[in-house]
Amino acid sequence: MTGHEDEDERLERLHFATVLKAFDDYLPYCLSANDTRRRSYFSLPMAHQQLLSDLGAPLPLPELEASSSSSSSLDPSRGFKSRLDEIDDRIRRNADLLSAIADESRGFLGPEPLASNGSSPHDASTSGADDASNGGKGLRKRRKIAGHEIEKIQSTLKQFVRDWSVEGLPERSAVYTPMIEAVTGLYGDSDKRSQVRILVPGAGLGRLAFEYASLGYSCQGNEFSFYMLLASHFILNKTTHVGQHAIYPFVHSSSNWRTADDMLRVIRIPDVLPSRLPATSEFSMVAGEFCEVYSQPHEAKAWQVVATCFFIDTAKNVVRYLETINHLLPVGGHWINAGPLLWHFENASRSTPTPDNLSIELTLDELVQLLPKMGFELEQRRPLPPTPYTGMLNGMLQYHYSPEFFVCRKVRDVAAAAAV
Amino acid sequence: MTGHEDEDERLERLHFATVLKAFDDYLPYCLSANDTRRRSYFSLPMAHQQLLSDLGAPLPLPELEASSSSSSSLDPSRGFKSRLDEIDDRIRRNADLLSAIADESRGFLGPEPLASNGSSPHDASTSGADDASNGGKGLRKRRKIAGHEIEKIQSTLKQFVRDWSVEGLPERSAVYTPMIEAVTGLYGDSDKRSQVRILVPGAGLGRLAFEYASLGYSCQGNEFSFYMLLASHFILNKTTHVGQHAIYPFVHSSSNWRTADDMLRVIRIPDVLPSRLPATSEFSMVAGEFCEVYSQPHEAKAWQVVATCFFIDTAKNVVRYLETINHLLPVGGHWINAGPLLWHFENASRSTPTPDNLSIELTLDELVQLLPKMGFELEQRRPLPPTPYTGMLNGMLQYHYSPEFFVCRKVRDVAAAAAV
Repeated sequence: MTGHEDEDERLERLHFATVLKAFDDYLPYCLSANDTRRRSYFSLPMAHQQLLSDLGAPLPLPELEASSSSSSSLDPSRGFKSRLDEIDDRIRRNADLLSAIADESRGFLGPEPLASNGSSPHDASTSGADDASNGGKGLRKRRKIAGHEIEKIQSTLKQFVRDWSVEGLPERSAVYTPMIEAVTGLYGDSDKRSQVRILVPGAGLGRLAFEYASLGYSCQGNEFSFYMLLASHFILNKTTHVGQHAIYPFVHSSSNWRTADDMLRVIRIPDVLPSRLPATSEFSMVAGEFCEVYSQPHEAKAWQVVATCFFIDTAKNVVRYLETINHLLPVGGHWINAGPLLWHFENASRSTPTPDNLSIELTLDELVQLLPKMGFELEQRRPLPPTPYTGMLNGMLQYHYSPEFFVCRKVRDVAAAAAV
Repeated sequence: MTGHEDEDERLERLHFATVLKAFDDYLPYCLSANDTRRRSYFSLPMAHQQLLSDLGAPLPLPELEASSSSSSSLDPSRGFKSRLDEIDDRIRRNADLLSAIADESRGFLGPEPLASNGSSPHDASTSGADDASNGGKGLRKRRKIAGHEIEKIQSTLKQFVRDWSVEGLPERSAVYTPMIEAVTGLYGDSDKRSQVRILVPGAGLGRLAFEYASLGYSCQGNEFSFYMLLASHFILNKTTHVGQHAIYPFVHSSSNWRTADDMLRVIRIPDVLPSRLPATSEFSMVAGEFCEVYSQPHEAKAWQVVATCFFIDTAKNVVRYLETINHLLPVGGHWINAGPLLWHFENASRSTPTPDNLSIELTLDELVQLLPKMGFELEQRRPLPPTPYTGMLNGMLQYHYSPEFFVCRKVRDVAAAAAV
């Protein structure tokens, strides 16, 4: 077993190194992608380049610190090519913050391993380019940049909007509010809130867990993704004032924008100070795969509430998730859920499924019928109004989820099936 | 030049063969994908398989011909595994129709070339599997199946819903109705409608062009995609009665469904008989790339109206599209547009852009400011309410586009820039 654990740890460290590398590679990768746009422009006939040269409204300036007075001396530019220059500028500003986030977590799993090209299982399929002619410290390393890892960095920036900005309030209200009201309705007595332990699996950047904690509950977030863990560690523990950081989460796609202002829009984070919590409440974040961490014997019946938000469809086998939730709750405890059923591992693999690598995709109907078999009794159920998830602001394309909301009470113990 | 044209024709025939192959490969590819789900199920612990065995409501039967009386003797089944069997059944029914569509067009470009693996430029990046253990005539050919080509087949089935089913009416009303009202408002005189020539670039399955023709206008649709051309040829020319064909367009993804009924839902096409047109109106479909076909000298000022719907963002260089539209219209003619700006060639290539392989992505603001430079005067402009495009019916995820609608009048000739 020790050899197997060592191998697991080695793979874990390699994966962590890949994630840190993605934070570093964001700058050269995104500059290179934007440079492809610039080279497209220069491939146009001169007459077309001239037509595009002064299009659009004057471009917005980056949001500068209030103490800086230089902004008034800058003339705003305009035109297609100038917009590409502004995108470069915003990518650089994002990269500065991403470096700060990564720097706070380097060494988290010990010294960085030498992640040679392709040696990490998470690094297997690479795409994109590393031929950026632009500067950037990622360029010192000549390893391949994986496009799908950079997309996770870009998603992380959008998660900041959802969880920690004023602009994210509509998305949070749509889903977090009913989840919070369900808890206060069931466990509302203010004096005893700190004795109510709430677990939030798939906690992401931690806002829902923080909201429970700020109401006085003892709350733990659980998260598997290193991208989310690094970013949540930074925002939760390394922030000193509201609006401390400026991010530009919308500069990575050029489609479906009404104006350059929308695309270059600045978002300030956080909208509230994460360190402001009642003295009585407990708040923590735990890294790891949900079933692995919480099927441990000492977690049995250790939580009054499990609150899952856009989470259960991350399961390869959702029955295991339900077994684990049953394990965590005492009879009478509550599972609160809101989310769609975008099964994350559908199409993940066309190879032969194994017990560790499969995907079971249920309909909502099937999931709801599974609940009583797994020891749960449905107390509330309703579809929530359609809502975006890390959506474009004012874009011409919006993904609208219709999350299902339900509250169920655990009515009996259900033993987990033995592994195959 | 002759050698170059021969090479173009050869590539065209190879691409056509690839498309025909995708129609043939739909069956083994989709059965294989569904079989991966089945093997996931059989990789579960026995206890979990049993839990899933009778979930969900009784499954719907496939829509059988009205003349068949056998349906009443069939007992509906239920449970997760039975749903997978029903998906297989619907895939087979789709494949029967797809074969009929392909059969109508085989030989369209002469005898089928021997499309050896990877010899077509459209066949370069392949993915997916061809290890289906299920029957199907595509299996006789042992060439690689390209997943992205099969996705285009699946999209074609959804396009049938949008353009030719009762269920597609809301999507059509959202966008086609304002485009039709703009024409009847400007060119409404019934007696002279047949003298009004309307061009619909990016005509897809032809419904918008058909609607103009059915109002008495002379209308031509133009389409580049062989997938759309084969399917529109079939529905426009080979249909004898309303509701003739049953398709199951939603069985290819297992995510975000509320019920098995929604996923297995039958759609009957067409909702109107495409051959029913006024005797005076002309209606035709022309294959080819928009700028190539319509920048020809004999097309100059040959159309009173160009109507583009979800089309202009298919441009690599939208200035070329605008030059071509200017070329097509007389001064006083109208260009009517509705659509988002989902630039199709963004991210298509990270390699060095060339005049033939680039992507220029404008904001709406920039596009609108380009109009007067290209000889157009804006007469109407408004955002249309959010609408899906080939959306899931009753799913938990919906892509909502906010198309921009505008009408502009050509006010002066603009010469096309010389090629680089």
